[in-house]
Amino acid sequence: MTEPANPPVDLAAARRLLAAQPFSVLLGARLAEFGDGTAVLELPARDELRQQNGYLHGGVLSYAADNALTFAGGSVLGPSVLTGGLTISYLRPAAGDLLRTRATVVHASRRQAFCRCDLFVVQDGEAVLCAAAQGTIVSTR
Amino acid sequence: MTEPANPPVDLAAARRLLAAQPFSVLLGARLAEFGDGTAVLELPARDELRQQNGYLHGGVLSYAADNALTFAGGSVLGPSVLTGGLTISYLRPAAGDLLRTRATVVHASRRQAFCRCDLFVVQDGEAVLCAAAQGTIVSTR
Amino acid sequence: MTEPANPPVDLAAARRLLAAQPFSVLLGARLAEFGDGTAVLELPARDELRQQNGYLHGGVLSYAADNALTFAGGSVLGPSVLTGGLTISYLRPAAGDLLRTRATVVHASRRQAFCRCDLFVVQDGEAVLCAAAQGTIVSTR
Amino acid sequence: MTEPANPPVDLAAARRLLAAQPFSVLLGARLAEFGDGTAVLELPARDELRQQNGYLHGGVLSYAADNALTFAGGSVLGPSVLTGGLTISYLRPAAGDLLRTRATVVHASRRQAFCRCDLFVVQDGEAVLCAAAQGTIVSTR
Repeated sequence: MTEPANPPVDLAAARRLLAAQPFSVLLGARLAEFGDGTAVLELPARDELRQQNGYLHGGVLSYAADNALTFAGGSVLGPSVLTGGLTISYLRPAAGDLLRTRATVVHASRRQAFCRCDLFVVQDGEAVLCAAAQGTIVSTR
Repeated sequence: MTEPANPPVDLAAARRLLAAQPFSVLLGARLAEFGDGTAVLELPARDELRQQNGYLHGGVLSYAADNALTFAGGSVLGPSVLTGGLTISYLRPAAGDLLRTRATVVHASRRQAFCRCDLFVVQDGEAVLCAAAQGTIVSTR
Repeated sequence: MTEPANPPVDLAAARRLLAAQPFSVLLGARLAEFGDGTAVLELPARDELRQQNGYLHGGVLSYAADNALTFAGGSVLGPSVLTGGLTISYLRPAAGDLLRTRATVVHASRRQAFCRCDLFVVQDGEAVLCAAAQGTIVSTR
Repeated sequence: MTEPANPPVDLAAARRLLAAQPFSVLLGARLAEFGDGTAVLELPARDELRQQNGYLHGGVLSYAADNALTFAGGSVLGPSVLTGGLTISYLRPAAGDLLRTRATVVHASRRQAFCRCDLFVVQDGEAVLCAAAQGTIVSTR
């Protein structure tokens, strides 16, 4: 990880940015950790986020991957970033009470960051990997 | 496209399945077309679906890609399917009134379907490509 | 497709560029078509390109996808391009005499192009889809 | 990582399998490590593997990712596997003497394994990350 383009934002600033995303508010996302190339996004798994079989909807997981990757990238590139794209693999049905998504910057240049993330569904205190993703975050500065 | 595993469901049945997904109801998704390897999913772009700059959130687009790909796959594999994974590239900021996602089966065997989709944001009647995806849908039968 | 950054190269120039890639020469690749956002790359399927079961190696297919996507992008962005990344799905074992890869630009800005490609293996004159890919090509100007 | 389907092969057997792939022989690939969900594939960077600017060709990297992911998956699923697909991001020009690709199984069921890999180019003893990938390996048993 090299050469952050902008002064990285801190956890409080990142939480304000998340709170300014109406879609993240609708889903109930919160930032548990942020900084130094890492972002942990959590989503309580309420019923409105499920699909027809009671699991978290794949679209909830892809949202969490997208946003966690973007915040991880933003922690080194600064707040003016957008997601170029991402690939997500669904590994297990997401049955549980909480979705926890941990994203990490693997490589960053001044203008973009390549990040990976792991998505865990937590039930009765146990975290189970349910999906994994990678993506590229681009600075718009 | 070869050898559908199950009798394909029709548009009415597909709409009932979508209505049984609480997350799709929360987002306001509707199926405009369904059948023969194609699914068109539409989402009116209400404010709750946006990010901090007023564009549709990337997570809304990834949801739409995920679900449109799954329904396209289900149109040839039958209703018991799940998404193995997907790759989405964001091409333009999604500014508009409606998100229209058209997914098509490119190749299907008895057990899985490879699909592509194009995501258009519609403003003042004009549809602009804002993202594109591909993914694999797996039959659980 | 909008705003090519550089004067696009023509088929003869593109073939010279391919001939300047030692790895493409080693594999025996040739450009059958080039221009206006499209590139068709062909590889005669000689034995050295196979895996242990006699099919073309997945790495041959990923090479063909990578290079066809890059040339398609270069047809609108100009010769100074590199591949940001790609996703390939393998759909069928590649058994045949020739691998033909057709890549097309789906969307281009001044600085990058999003492209898709289809990989066909040709046997006895019949082309069968064996893989499909998408990727992003970046101008280095 | 759970439930390997077949008795995993050992390093010697894996090397025999690699030697039975004419394309891997053509490229000069060798297995440096193998077992327990990991495979390390190395390729000396001879001139025939380069592109027009002297860097290793992207297709060489995608081959290495494809094959390292497949061997990592095979280390838990057994020798009868194929690659469903992969996503590779190119992070830096690959300038150096050796390409070293380390793939690891992140999650495995009886029938498939999800793997990640990191590609390093080694120059003067220093390994630099030049690409990263993820993919799904499927058992054909």
